[in-house]
Amino acid sequence: MTDHSQSLGQAVTARSSAASPAVVLVRPQMGENIGMAARAMANFGLCELRLVAPRDGWPNQKAVDAAVGAASIVERARVFQSVREAIEDFHKVFVTTSRERGQAKPVLGADTLARETVERIANGQRIGILFGPERTGLENDDIALADAIVSFPVNPAHPSLNLAQAVSLVAYEWFKVSQGAAPPFNIGHETPPATRDVVLGFFAHLEAELDAANYFIPANKRPIMARNLFNIFHRAGLTHQDVQTLRGVVRALAHGRKSRARS
Amino acid sequence: MTDHSQSLGQAVTARSSAASPAVVLVRPQMGENIGMAARAMANFGLCELRLVAPRDGWPNQKAVDAAVGAASIVERARVFQSVREAIEDFHKVFVTTSRERGQAKPVLGADTLARETVERIANGQRIGILFGPERTGLENDDIALADAIVSFPVNPAHPSLNLAQAVSLVAYEWFKVSQGAAPPFNIGHETPPATRDVVLGFFAHLEAELDAANYFIPANKRPIMARNLFNIFHRAGLTHQDVQTLRGVVRALAHGRKSRARS
Repeated sequence: MTDHSQSLGQAVTARSSAASPAVVLVRPQMGENIGMAARAMANFGLCELRLVAPRDGWPNQKAVDAAVGAASIVERARVFQSVREAIEDFHKVFVTTSRERGQAKPVLGADTLARETVERIANGQRIGILFGPERTGLENDDIALADAIVSFPVNPAHPSLNLAQAVSLVAYEWFKVSQGAAPPFNIGHETPPATRDVVLGFFAHLEAELDAANYFIPANKRPIMARNLFNIFHRAGLTHQDVQTLRGVVRALAHGRKSRARS
Repeated sequence: MTDHSQSLGQAVTARSSAASPAVVLVRPQMGENIGMAARAMANFGLCELRLVAPRDGWPNQKAVDAAVGAASIVERARVFQSVREAIEDFHKVFVTTSRERGQAKPVLGADTLARETVERIANGQRIGILFGPERTGLENDDIALADAIVSFPVNPAHPSLNLAQAVSLVAYEWFKVSQGAAPPFNIGHETPPATRDVVLGFFAHLEAELDAANYFIPANKRPIMARNLFNIFHRAGLTHQDVQTLRGVVRALAHGRKSRARS
């Protein structure tokens, strides 16, 4: 991990809870799922967890254990007796469901939710995203409290998402939008492609060795044979080091061939 | 569930394995994670699971139990002794990792992977996506076998994703691209907005009742008061049924007031 990513990590961790949406688990059943949801939140920079009437009471050691590195999110979770109390201070409330509920509310994908959430938070709003209990999902009365519905494009034959995975998808989309979608590292930045002269110098080297080996037969096919060969290396996006490596390979092959020819 | 979504479900389920990427779990440790990965695959229309040297042997009842509705994916999983054997028939192999590995390969996000996978499959290619064991992830020798690296934008302070959640993110992005990103239902299609004349008819009704109640005071503020009020309803995107409901509300309020005035 580079210094850059460490400082990003601290920035993400230090982010105040108002700067990211809160995850509200409504009547969650299994402590393991609460913990795994917290772990997914930590993966994607969310930090505020609220629980409404967790079935097995609170605190719950199974939730702490399943959170792995994110036990602090579990330990700081606030518990409420009702959905209404849990969402009091939010400016906008979204509910997740995989089934159509006959309630005339906008339906968003998790990606659209992420864009809207980032925008609203930038304007100082507090956002809550509700997830229903395992198996049954949210009740219609819970859904009626929300401004909009979040749904996932799922295979209709298998629409039931694991609770922590649903949290993970929402958090992932949020992190993509709020942090930018680029992967966390990019080898391309560290090893730029070789300059053209280095690449073409290698091609000349390779071509000379292949000439010495009578590779280009018949002679009239030579241009297309060379072009096809060189295009393979073009597609590889060679770095300077790659070219050094390939020159060594070509030298070794050519030298070995001469040695064998001599013996 | 509508007839339309049922037939889509059957189409997704019936999809041949060559039409979607295969998920390859390399030396997975816990049966629960294998089963939860299979469940996530089913959620997002993937069907081919391969396992390389699962720690606890195979078959594994915990994997079947954790798969919930996706036991058939677990039961049809093929088991291999080495990564090399497991990937033999793929045209393109991707590996998932959350850490930079010093290997000069392209690094893609799961969304880019999805677009590339859909395109390659449309061209008849078979694609495999490798996931490493819990905790340790893939070894460098496994990564060396792949064409490209898939990485997730994660909080660097908490980069370790649960195995099944990583599978879930890849499958989710694949389904978004291959099926279109639209949520599985959209209330807007079923209940179109009311036509302008219906909405404006309601506004006239409301305005008349408010006039009767001497609401628009002072008179010079009337235009802006009316405009602000009507804009609230504009923003709600009223359906025909909404307008009927609101007319009933206005009638009830106005009638109730008159009754009270009379008594």
